[in-house]
Amino acid sequence: MTDGITALKTALPATAWTQDADIIAPHLVEWRDKYQGETPLMLTPRSTAEVSEAVKICAAHGLKIVPQGGNTGLVGGQTPQGEVLLSLKKMTVIRDVDIINNAMIVEAGATLQSVHDAADAANTQFPLFLASQGSCTIGGNLSTNAGGNHVLKYGTTKDLVFGVEAVLASGEIYNGLTSLRKDNTGYDLSRLFLGAEGTLGIITAASLKLFPKAGYTQRVIAAVDDPAQALKLLETCRAGGRLSMFEVMPRIGLNAVVKNIDGQREPFDAPHPWYVVIDWDVETESEGAALAKTLLVKAFEKDFIRDAVIAQNETQAAQILSLRENMSSGQKFLGGSIKFDITVPLNTIPEFFKKADAAMEAQIPGCRPVGFGHFGDGNIHYNIAQPVGMNKQKFLDHWQAVSETVFDIVGEFGGSISAEHGIGIMKKEDLAKRADPVKLAMLKSIKQALDPENIMNPRVML
Amino acid sequence: MTDGITALKTALPATAWTQDADIIAPHLVEWRDKYQGETPLMLTPRSTAEVSEAVKICAAHGLKIVPQGGNTGLVGGQTPQGEVLLSLKKMTVIRDVDIINNAMIVEAGATLQSVHDAADAANTQFPLFLASQGSCTIGGNLSTNAGGNHVLKYGTTKDLVFGVEAVLASGEIYNGLTSLRKDNTGYDLSRLFLGAEGTLGIITAASLKLFPKAGYTQRVIAAVDDPAQALKLLETCRAGGRLSMFEVMPRIGLNAVVKNIDGQREPFDAPHPWYVVIDWDVETESEGAALAKTLLVKAFEKDFIRDAVIAQNETQAAQILSLRENMSSGQKFLGGSIKFDITVPLNTIPEFFKKADAAMEAQIPGCRPVGFGHFGDGNIHYNIAQPVGMNKQKFLDHWQAVSETVFDIVGEFGGSISAEHGIGIMKKEDLAKRADPVKLAMLKSIKQALDPENIMNPRVML
Repeated sequence: MTDGITALKTALPATAWTQDADIIAPHLVEWRDKYQGETPLMLTPRSTAEVSEAVKICAAHGLKIVPQGGNTGLVGGQTPQGEVLLSLKKMTVIRDVDIINNAMIVEAGATLQSVHDAADAANTQFPLFLASQGSCTIGGNLSTNAGGNHVLKYGTTKDLVFGVEAVLASGEIYNGLTSLRKDNTGYDLSRLFLGAEGTLGIITAASLKLFPKAGYTQRVIAAVDDPAQALKLLETCRAGGRLSMFEVMPRIGLNAVVKNIDGQREPFDAPHPWYVVIDWDVETESEGAALAKTLLVKAFEKDFIRDAVIAQNETQAAQILSLRENMSSGQKFLGGSIKFDITVPLNTIPEFFKKADAAMEAQIPGCRPVGFGHFGDGNIHYNIAQPVGMNKQKFLDHWQAVSETVFDIVGEFGGSISAEHGIGIMKKEDLAKRADPVKLAMLKSIKQALDPENIMNPRVML
Repeated sequence: MTDGITALKTALPATAWTQDADIIAPHLVEWRDKYQGETPLMLTPRSTAEVSEAVKICAAHGLKIVPQGGNTGLVGGQTPQGEVLLSLKKMTVIRDVDIINNAMIVEAGATLQSVHDAADAANTQFPLFLASQGSCTIGGNLSTNAGGNHVLKYGTTKDLVFGVEAVLASGEIYNGLTSLRKDNTGYDLSRLFLGAEGTLGIITAASLKLFPKAGYTQRVIAAVDDPAQALKLLETCRAGGRLSMFEVMPRIGLNAVVKNIDGQREPFDAPHPWYVVIDWDVETESEGAALAKTLLVKAFEKDFIRDAVIAQNETQAAQILSLRENMSSGQKFLGGSIKFDITVPLNTIPEFFKKADAAMEAQIPGCRPVGFGHFGDGNIHYNIAQPVGMNKQKFLDHWQAVSETVFDIVGEFGGSISAEHGIGIMKKEDLAKRADPVKLAMLKSIKQALDPENIMNPRVML
């Protein structure tokens, strides 16, 4: 081990590594404070060549590596426990913005915000939008296949990528940086790295797909009785193919936001059991208003909706979205929270809520489900707030038991135990226990094929 | 070998295999007559369970397998040379059409046409359109990652699939039949089978993505001077994000069609060097006419276009498209043809044509390049017609030498030697010779991991 560390320090320029505890410290904790890491050395390479050189040395000395982007991951995948920490934070170059091929080539350490800015400057867009975009990096977004609010229209990060450049466990460089829309010359290798959480190699750069900006985005907030009504509303809102966002919030979640977060206010005079934030991408403001009116009228006639506000300007649109964006912070005021990030098929969402809510009440009487999020993708952040007055830690001690219940129900509906946050450390055992053995064996054989010594983020996922 | 054949015949019902030479014969030739195959036994399983059972027996006896769909492949990937032939033609069930999740689960042997019909009956669409859709099967479309005319808007087949069910080399069944839009629980295993040409397993069923139908499709045929002008026209036509097709045809190709194919006629009074067929998907006919007019006027003003006809009705639209669809049959009248299916980055298409045309003339004076096809994706079917009066076979003998020249130029532009037809047998040596060694090694290690005995379409791709 020490030989390897010495070899890295000798081979790499002093700017490409550090052992300064103060500099390393923030890279060993994450914002939910669930994981505390340690590392003998943090590498901060400035180029793909330096990453390649570092990995070759690690491979030669049997050193294991944990790659890290913006350290905003939610499942512990970016936190080293004695491994070498390889931070991509110094690889931030946007290599190329190509508006003819609608492609942007960017290094892994660039923040999502800087990608947005570069796209914006070329009057185009990269349609991945995350609350953490100021700090999360594109390499992390790709390695975790990040989701967000616009998956409904554009798909997950996987669907927004032409290909990647990655340093393999051998230190060799795979170059998939292309803007070709069609290339049938073998298996989709770049795709393997997307959502792999750094277990197959280190993404050092990516060729991203750029999309024309919407002429105008029409936003609406609607009130409904329950998820069944929300599902019918979704079907209505999809007509015409312009729907770009469909997010739900339960009353308890919205209430926590408007009561506790500055500048947030009730969207309607009277409270409603559920709220839906809806976006349509259209060409013009008038087209947006007309489309919203037509579809909402249809929804009222069919009794799919209780009330609705059509945003009249950008300020109003921003106010509506900020209710949704504050769902997580709002829940902090409800005490301890056991969090899930699940998907079920759209048609089963209402049943899922019925079954899961009942199971939660049976398991922890008085607990308060706060299921919100990407309804239009079947992706619910099904969080459980503690019963009023219960001891927080006592409640959180139920995490594993509650997981078993929720994941059993998700399984019954053919859903996924991790929609967008990934597996990391947090859900590793759940995956091992619940995934189809054939799938698990395939995952392991691919890991074995590309990282036989298991040096790439070795404790993660599998 | 004979033991294995006997074991298959014993274990499988008599309806699931045949050795009748007359029944097998059409499965051993393909429509370009480039490959003639042979097989000791054709399996025709009617269920995934029967495929699994057959593969287990083959694995146990070291029998190798070539899977076959509609036998419309263009690179020899579906033609056995002594292997067991496994035809999916009896697995044609459309298991489910789910309009809430916009998903269709269909067995591999279903024709693309039957998938279209089922989608159409549910007032939705599966946007893969191929000239061979009456006979090609969805399993073949997925295994070859078929392209077609609408990749520009919807992507290749890979992008139209939620997941697949596949029988692995062990005979085990991988079940990726989901309609989940978000599932971050490991590597994208289904994706590995897409474009794998049957080398990693046999796709037995797929969960396909369904899309809302366009309200109206506005078609135009335009005349331009050269690919450089076509590229500028493409940029103009993309404005507003409604472009769904952008196909080019050179004068020599169009001339061969109108001169030789019944019912085809000149789109303009005077001939032009190049023609472009353009589709925009819009809501209404009036919207389509207005959009086409606006964008074409812009193109005329900027001198990106020489002439244009806006289709006034479906008949006219069909006439325009049939010119494009007859490009291949038309070329038969030009004599021998050396065919390529390449992609280059959009911005390099004009340069590619200049360089390639000059190189062709230098190599075979008088030969006639007929480069047509999916310009909007950078995918050109760059075919070379023989010089007038030259002996056909003499010309075709230049195939390999001409390939080297064309592929060298494609390489210079960072293009692909196979855009949508795949590798199969035809381009296997070219891939081995031209692919990045790191990529080749990764492809082989994945093949090795999932099919260690190399029984799945063993002579293909790698």
